[in-house]
Amino acid sequence: MALYDTLFNELDVSSAQLLVTDSDFRDKDFRKQLNVTVRSLLSLKVIPIFNENDAVSTRKAPYEDSSGIFWDNDSLAALLALELKADLLVLLSDVEGLYSGPPSDPKSKLIHTYVKEKHRHEITFGDKSRVGRGGMTAKVKAAVNAAYAGIPVVITSGYAAKNIIKVLQGQRIGTLFHQDAHFWEPTKEVSAREMAVAARERSRRLQALSSQERKKILLDIADALEANEKLITIENEADVAAAQEAGYEKSLISRLALKPGKISNLAKSIRVLANMEDPIGRILKKTQLADGLILEKTSSPLGVLLIVFESRPDALVQIASLAIRSGNGLLLKGGKEAKQSNAILHKVITEAIPDTIGGQVIGLVTSREEISDLLKLDDVIDLVIPRGSNKLVSQIKSSTKIPVLGHADGICHVYVDKSADLDMAKRIVLDAKTDYPAACNAMETLLVHKDLVHIGALNELIVDLRVEGVNLYGGPRASSLLNIPQAHSFHHEYNSMACTVEIVDDVAAAIDHIHHHGSAHTDCIITEDQEIAEVFLHQVDSAAVFHNASTRFCDGARFGLGAEVGISTSRIHARGPVGVEGLLTTKWILKGSGQVVDGDKGVMYIHKDIPIDS
Amino acid sequence: MALYDTLFNELDVSSAQLLVTDSDFRDKDFRKQLNVTVRSLLSLKVIPIFNENDAVSTRKAPYEDSSGIFWDNDSLAALLALELKADLLVLLSDVEGLYSGPPSDPKSKLIHTYVKEKHRHEITFGDKSRVGRGGMTAKVKAAVNAAYAGIPVVITSGYAAKNIIKVLQGQRIGTLFHQDAHFWEPTKEVSAREMAVAARERSRRLQALSSQERKKILLDIADALEANEKLITIENEADVAAAQEAGYEKSLISRLALKPGKISNLAKSIRVLANMEDPIGRILKKTQLADGLILEKTSSPLGVLLIVFESRPDALVQIASLAIRSGNGLLLKGGKEAKQSNAILHKVITEAIPDTIGGQVIGLVTSREEISDLLKLDDVIDLVIPRGSNKLVSQIKSSTKIPVLGHADGICHVYVDKSADLDMAKRIVLDAKTDYPAACNAMETLLVHKDLVHIGALNELIVDLRVEGVNLYGGPRASSLLNIPQAHSFHHEYNSMACTVEIVDDVAAAIDHIHHHGSAHTDCIITEDQEIAEVFLHQVDSAAVFHNASTRFCDGARFGLGAEVGISTSRIHARGPVGVEGLLTTKWILKGSGQVVDGDKGVMYIHKDIPIDS
Repeated sequence: MALYDTLFNELDVSSAQLLVTDSDFRDKDFRKQLNVTVRSLLSLKVIPIFNENDAVSTRKAPYEDSSGIFWDNDSLAALLALELKADLLVLLSDVEGLYSGPPSDPKSKLIHTYVKEKHRHEITFGDKSRVGRGGMTAKVKAAVNAAYAGIPVVITSGYAAKNIIKVLQGQRIGTLFHQDAHFWEPTKEVSAREMAVAARERSRRLQALSSQERKKILLDIADALEANEKLITIENEADVAAAQEAGYEKSLISRLALKPGKISNLAKSIRVLANMEDPIGRILKKTQLADGLILEKTSSPLGVLLIVFESRPDALVQIASLAIRSGNGLLLKGGKEAKQSNAILHKVITEAIPDTIGGQVIGLVTSREEISDLLKLDDVIDLVIPRGSNKLVSQIKSSTKIPVLGHADGICHVYVDKSADLDMAKRIVLDAKTDYPAACNAMETLLVHKDLVHIGALNELIVDLRVEGVNLYGGPRASSLLNIPQAHSFHHEYNSMACTVEIVDDVAAAIDHIHHHGSAHTDCIITEDQEIAEVFLHQVDSAAVFHNASTRFCDGARFGLGAEVGISTSRIHARGPVGVEGLLTTKWILKGSGQVVDGDKGVMYIHKDIPIDS
Repeated sequence: MALYDTLFNELDVSSAQLLVTDSDFRDKDFRKQLNVTVRSLLSLKVIPIFNENDAVSTRKAPYEDSSGIFWDNDSLAALLALELKADLLVLLSDVEGLYSGPPSDPKSKLIHTYVKEKHRHEITFGDKSRVGRGGMTAKVKAAVNAAYAGIPVVITSGYAAKNIIKVLQGQRIGTLFHQDAHFWEPTKEVSAREMAVAARERSRRLQALSSQERKKILLDIADALEANEKLITIENEADVAAAQEAGYEKSLISRLALKPGKISNLAKSIRVLANMEDPIGRILKKTQLADGLILEKTSSPLGVLLIVFESRPDALVQIASLAIRSGNGLLLKGGKEAKQSNAILHKVITEAIPDTIGGQVIGLVTSREEISDLLKLDDVIDLVIPRGSNKLVSQIKSSTKIPVLGHADGICHVYVDKSADLDMAKRIVLDAKTDYPAACNAMETLLVHKDLVHIGALNELIVDLRVEGVNLYGGPRASSLLNIPQAHSFHHEYNSMACTVEIVDDVAAAIDHIHHHGSAHTDCIITEDQEIAEVFLHQVDSAAVFHNASTRFCDGARFGLGAEVGISTSRIHARGPVGVEGLLTTKWILKGSGQVVDGDKGVMYIHKDIPIDS
């Protein structure tokens, strides 16, 4: 105790010894008092240190006394953990953890996760540890008891530096005991190709369900997420701690962390998705080809999606629930920084999927296959959705034949025409740049009609941006006129409180500029001249073209699309903000009564559109 | 004349000498009689051989006599060609054709196409030929006169074997004189990338036109095709002749030939396209996001299309007119077997496009770049549409990152359920297989419910197919039962009067079979059981799924889509028969009155759908 005291004092931390006996625990009032005492000490930031009160103990032969409540410090610790409803019990040993055989035997392997069903009969315990009364047998017994009563336990070495901290960070050291451990056992490693094939097969079962049944699965997932919030938070905190220790960027860590309330928000949005109109099997077009021959164009699941994402574990939840709503199979490949968060979220979600479908409908790729290997699976994957940095998206786009839904750049322009309402122009320009400067739909280039230079309107716009703290860079004309640094390239995304300014002759020059230097994401004109507005809206060849509204409106939620799958600048399949329809394709269904083509003499074609009853 | 007579006699051909004089041609009645005489001789299959009637000619110094009507055999030939409205005049020389300098000078080059403006002052004529009165100067003079009066002329060597036949086949030998030759001059070779960039730029001009203006271009193209039918036919016949000589397959030659009436049919279908509702800028969805903030999802051209086609020059016309209707830029890469047909069709079409747009909106890739080089241009080409053999489509699909609209296989199934109306089953099965066995939507595999075996229904189906001449191959169950050869693979497209037959346990087994062995093109169930039909329609994951109707209905025209771009089995962008909408993407247009996002406090979202007035 003196040693504890000295060492804790060096850290300016007080500690207090609490001595207990076996018989104390038989007293209900003692157990109540114990809780109060420990909580009071902790609130005073005093660390309680328990030991058996050997001096007053009446026990004679603790190991033989089957009626004993504890038998050694390990079982005492387990008992206390239960009584005090601890978050975690760490048992320190003189070896790294539990081994499959005597630790001195080189064939013995450290067991990272103890699974009772598997390890119970497998392990040969070595000699009892020389330190203290306990030993590995005692530790495992105590750990199993605590774990199956609901307290996770880690047995690790007390000799290695910072081991307790590492355990708290969720690092894979020592041996973990957990009542759910049998669920976690890694199954045999399956290749991403096998996972994709399985996901397609399972997705067909999912499609065969009724809409109500798919809805039920989503509601179950929402419930499961909420029920497992604590578990998810623990794993996520471990990822965050590891990322902090590894010195990752702040922005990455901020995207990695599931902030309080996030899980319930995710659950809420899944319930919204569950209650939306079923996107599968909707009749998009109906035509009577001939007498008794009805053709329907219907919406149908796309097949197997691959989501590659960095940080954001919430993306996993969103995409997984979208995939289920739209009847698609899914492969998930997350960044290693979110490994534990992704694993637990994937586990919670797939366990909520009924066995008749099979959790394999959503595969989490944990094998060593790199993204580049996954991107070669164009025969079994139908669409890649990258969620991450521009760099990630660019790399993926340039290295796969699979269609990619996403955008690499968001170089959005606002063109202020000579006929613009200047107050409106200021309001929109400021919002487009400063509402969320890092967003892909933020303005990166401001184009101003030349006539606005002389009347001072350009200056007013510039001043307003400067007041808000925006750094300005100029094109050749603007930089000399406004005396601001020259932009290195017009094709540049600042993603920060900075933008490029340039002067253009007219709307045609603005359109040319946008076509040459833009990224075809979102471009806006501010003008009171309806004709000029029409020219701009008509001719600018971007995913989204706006008149007198901030570029920031380019967003699935603001567009009212429900869940947003992403914003696409590719021209194929889906363009601009993409909702669940981006995960769908079409299927033609023809219903006849024996019609044949017979050299086109078989039927009399009428091709009459039939209204679709909604 | 005796020599001609002898040589023609060896070929069992009669010849007749016609001797004329300069003064004869001054007589209108003679010229009339000349036509009648030549036509009569030709109808009797007698070859007329003209020469000047030197014995009775009154001319003294033909070369000095400026009032002369002809001066030598070359000018006589030109005169006769004009009088007789010849299709072609071939002038034989002792050299290969017209050279840029004396043929003996190694620096001289053979001129393949004489362009008056270019070559008039460039050519140094050598010594007059030693044979006969004429010479190269006389030949060129005669050729230019005839050509600019509308009769194409080729000067080639009379010594080389079969040169006349080669000329008739359109081979590039000798020197061609044609009044349109200045249009044909190859401009500097531009790379496919430059062509794609130019096509995009020009397509934006095309998009900026009104619908009426695009319609006008299409009508002009239709007119131009009809006006140039003869020219097109000549070039096409040359391709066909060359393909025949090169020993190409009959099917290829049949697809290569523009049959009589084809040009006017193409013109007719272009006029239909011209009169269709403009596919660009259609409002597909309209939403009021907030007060005064209206979002429209509109149809928009895809960008630049690359069409790779074999044989079928008609595909060039169809796709080019579809591209113009849909405001897209286009690169065409045809097979070398259709080189001349493609060149003339491309010329006729692009000349009908106004200069304000520029013919570069449709580029014909004639540079040496191979298809594999074109397929690398994924940054400037948005969609590839292959038109040709399965092999071509497969190769293209496997070697490009550009999205491909098309299908490699068409392994279509008909499943006859136990509850099928047997007469209907027979009718549909026969039609699906025999209406056009080489079509992609023809049945390749017949699946029959096991219960139909015992009642003899399977046998009836088989007998009917056999009567029609269909060769049958069996799966493991059917081959032993029916004693037919075993099919090597279920994934096989016969494209001929042959098919695979297999027995399956039920609709679920049929669906599994289709998923495992099919190509997701068109699959059909024949059943009177509505519930089973629904299961099949719902669960079979193919581009087109039919109930009680022949697979042969899977076709753009039969589906009423207007022009068919192709049938796609890819799941992205367009699936099944694809009309002009396959050449379109969408564009979001937002019309506001100064709205800003302002952390989503800027407007009150209402997201109200607004009906689209059609």
